[in-house]
Amino acid sequence: MKQFDNVSVLKQANVYFDGKCVSHTVVFADGSRKSVGVILPSSLTFNTAAPEVMELIAGRCRVRLQGEEGWTDFEAGQSFSVAGNSSFDIETFETVHYVCHFA
Amino acid sequence: MKQFDNVSVLKQANVYFDGKCVSHTVVFADGSRKSVGVILPSSLTFNTAAPEVMELIAGRCRVRLQGEEGWTDFEAGQSFSVAGNSSFDIETFETVHYVCHFA
Repeated sequence: MKQFDNVSVLKQANVYFDGKCVSHTVVFADGSRKSVGVILPSSLTFNTAAPEVMELIAGRCRVRLQGEEGWTDFEAGQSFSVAGNSSFDIETFETVHYVCHFA
Repeated sequence: MKQFDNVSVLKQANVYFDGKCVSHTVVFADGSRKSVGVILPSSLTFNTAAPEVMELIAGRCRVRLQGEEGWTDFEAGQSFSVAGNSSFDIETFETVHYVCHFA
């Protein structure tokens, strides 16, 4: 599924890390939210409030969750889960397109 | 109106100028499309295929349409129109959030 249907989308984006990460918020009929975004090639640390699942739509990266020693590679079609009130390091080797699902 | 309702949104973004411009495509019930995006602080030249109206949601910029000598300032709440098969120069003084309407 290349798109979300029957949703609302906020006109104003969320811009993080001087624009290295840009996302738009999508609101579903039940009031739940996801975001669709990109992370440009970079090495960043994201903090989470709510638990989230990052689904890669395109691109490649490696990820190290808070407390982990090693990195795990991810590519288009794969997802990784992050606990709430936590963080993860991400290195994007090429521009990553993602959907962020909040739990 | 801060959002578009009852639309589809493509999961994969459009990334231009090494990420200085990132947009997501929004599809309406009648099949028409708009895009919601950001332009990071930069000086860029965009080429148009179809005629378009750029509506500024947030931020400030100045614009020079193809064939114009002078620049015109625009800020949140304002729009400018660009002919098809044309171009415009844009300098964004701060991150611009926009909706692009295609004619």
